[in-house]
Amino acid sequence: MSTPPLPNQIADELAAMRQALALAEQAIGLSDPNPRVGCLIVAADGRVLGAGHTQAAGQAHAEVMALRDAAARGADVRGATAYVTLEPCSHHGRTPPCCDALIAAGLGRVVAAVGDPNPLVAGQGMARLRAAGIAAETGLLADEARELNIGFFSRMQRGRPFVRLKIAASLDGRTALLNGASQWITAEAARSDGHAWRKRAGAVLSGIGTVRDDDPRLDVRLVETARQPLRVVIDSRLETPVSARLLPPPGQVLIYAAVPAGSRPDLQAAGAEIASLPGPGGKVDLAAALADLGARGINELHVEAGHKLNGSLLREGLVDELLVYLAPKLLGQGREMAAFGPLESLKDALQWRWLDCRPVGQDLRLRARPA
Amino acid sequence: MSTPPLPNQIADELAAMRQALALAEQAIGLSDPNPRVGCLIVAADGRVLGAGHTQAAGQAHAEVMALRDAAARGADVRGATAYVTLEPCSHHGRTPPCCDALIAAGLGRVVAAVGDPNPLVAGQGMARLRAAGIAAETGLLADEARELNIGFFSRMQRGRPFVRLKIAASLDGRTALLNGASQWITAEAARSDGHAWRKRAGAVLSGIGTVRDDDPRLDVRLVETARQPLRVVIDSRLETPVSARLLPPPGQVLIYAAVPAGSRPDLQAAGAEIASLPGPGGKVDLAAALADLGARGINELHVEAGHKLNGSLLREGLVDELLVYLAPKLLGQGREMAAFGPLESLKDALQWRWLDCRPVGQDLRLRARPA
Repeated sequence: MSTPPLPNQIADELAAMRQALALAEQAIGLSDPNPRVGCLIVAADGRVLGAGHTQAAGQAHAEVMALRDAAARGADVRGATAYVTLEPCSHHGRTPPCCDALIAAGLGRVVAAVGDPNPLVAGQGMARLRAAGIAAETGLLADEARELNIGFFSRMQRGRPFVRLKIAASLDGRTALLNGASQWITAEAARSDGHAWRKRAGAVLSGIGTVRDDDPRLDVRLVETARQPLRVVIDSRLETPVSARLLPPPGQVLIYAAVPAGSRPDLQAAGAEIASLPGPGGKVDLAAALADLGARGINELHVEAGHKLNGSLLREGLVDELLVYLAPKLLGQGREMAAFGPLESLKDALQWRWLDCRPVGQDLRLRARPA
Repeated sequence: MSTPPLPNQIADELAAMRQALALAEQAIGLSDPNPRVGCLIVAADGRVLGAGHTQAAGQAHAEVMALRDAAARGADVRGATAYVTLEPCSHHGRTPPCCDALIAAGLGRVVAAVGDPNPLVAGQGMARLRAAGIAAETGLLADEARELNIGFFSRMQRGRPFVRLKIAASLDGRTALLNGASQWITAEAARSDGHAWRKRAGAVLSGIGTVRDDDPRLDVRLVETARQPLRVVIDSRLETPVSARLLPPPGQVLIYAAVPAGSRPDLQAAGAEIASLPGPGGKVDLAAALADLGARGINELHVEAGHKLNGSLLREGLVDELLVYLAPKLLGQGREMAAFGPLESLKDALQWRWLDCRPVGQDLRLRARPA
């Protein structure tokens, strides 16, 4: 994705923050596990002095990129305002604190869209700026900024990734024929859109049933990306074939099992990491797997699995968003979206709320979140 | 539904025909089996002289209503233009030909949105106007005008109603729990919207399975209507209980059976008409039933049935539109939308195309037509 042209002049605060958000979007598929942050430095007369977004982990954050951009243009940022989509960091991580860079550059004012979601450091960045005499405010386009980093917020606040469950189905809710055929129910535009969501994710997760039936690669191919997500398989009995197509592509593979990791040296030799997280009934402890993925820095987890794993994740309340591509076709008998039930009463239904609905090629894309 | 306020002045031809279409919509739930037609009479300077729409069958058509309206206002319509959403009739039906009324009134020009769909009379109205020296054109907003009378066009051109299949389902395609519970999967707004579609229909059709499981009334209750649609049940073995709630409400009831009509005098005594149309396998011949409904003047047929009858209608290619209310909930195991299959290959899927998607209350409403 190429950076959209930057305007020379900004009309107002809202336009400035929107531009900073557009910059932050450029960090999708690049900055994980760091949040996607954009920064726009604007003079009092509205001239844009510098702009930047978070780079790959360990490299410069948005504020530093914007200051470097201003320096490269020969712009004087003293007294100017920085619009930044997330509260600037005040602590030494892999890079020095962004607050210090803003203070050193002599900025007059900093407007952050939203505070740092990490409860241990929230507010400290703004406080540090104020202590240095810089006017510092938070809250402009906060919802949009939170949404862009919904996975980072989830990891910081809940210790686990934001889980997005992708389903491709027919209008009558079938994800495959009874004979297992599922390629393809949806059309190419929907599959490309699905890869754009994979790209957002730190990891793409599937189950052993899907690995056996569809042998997916689980990588990002249909859209450009600077990095590949971690590929994760829930495989309680470690039955993943060493010939599985998800093993060879660039990037890492992690298999969660309920049996000891050492029982499949061939998978380990093929480059897969195996983590044993046994839960009840000889199954992987799914909540523990999510916590482990959180600890590994996964912000958004993209799930493409079959009806059994979908059903388990949904029943356990571990799904934060449904991303459903609905093809305008009827399949009659076939596999269902999620195996659970039978319910006794409609009151026991899993309740969601619709987020949006839009056409993607000849299919529809529906998104829902828990009610 | 109250008539929206009529403007005094019309900007251009497009605005005039849009106004005529809005008038025509007032005939929904009123004019069946006659088409919904609106007529707006406009002076050369854009002043609106008269307006009207089709009344109940046997009463005045749109053109006559508009001429009467103009007369009531004391307006001189000589030389004016009539915008009418369907070619004026040239034949004596239950009322005299509208063409003659327009000619007698001295109209200068007639613009019709679309020609008469009846192949036996198409074009004759316009020809008759031209022969009388009136400028007569067709084609302005033709698609919108055809859509408003899609059932009338279907009956005139195919001899059968336009069949709209309504389904209320959960996100995972379930129309009921395994125990049959289905009231209610969707919320009140969706149910009201469903009644607005029932109101459009000349008949509402269900199957014996639904009559037994849900005991529906099949009438229009949640929106106002001037007339109730015919209620129709597909009941091959004539198993409708005489206590069925669909029998008492005002309006007519028609039951299609595959066994002789005389075998259930109790249903006939309860006011139901029974028509025997046996097809293969001891089932009602569904195509014959649609032809019969066409002959009875049914333009739009609204179907609310279960998975079996849905599957039969769909397999036989008798459904012209899917109207699906999708609730943001997951039910897991349950009844499917349409029973057919299993298919051997995804190439055998029933192919549709999405028409639109919009929120209705907390649910989504999706519409699709055959691809």
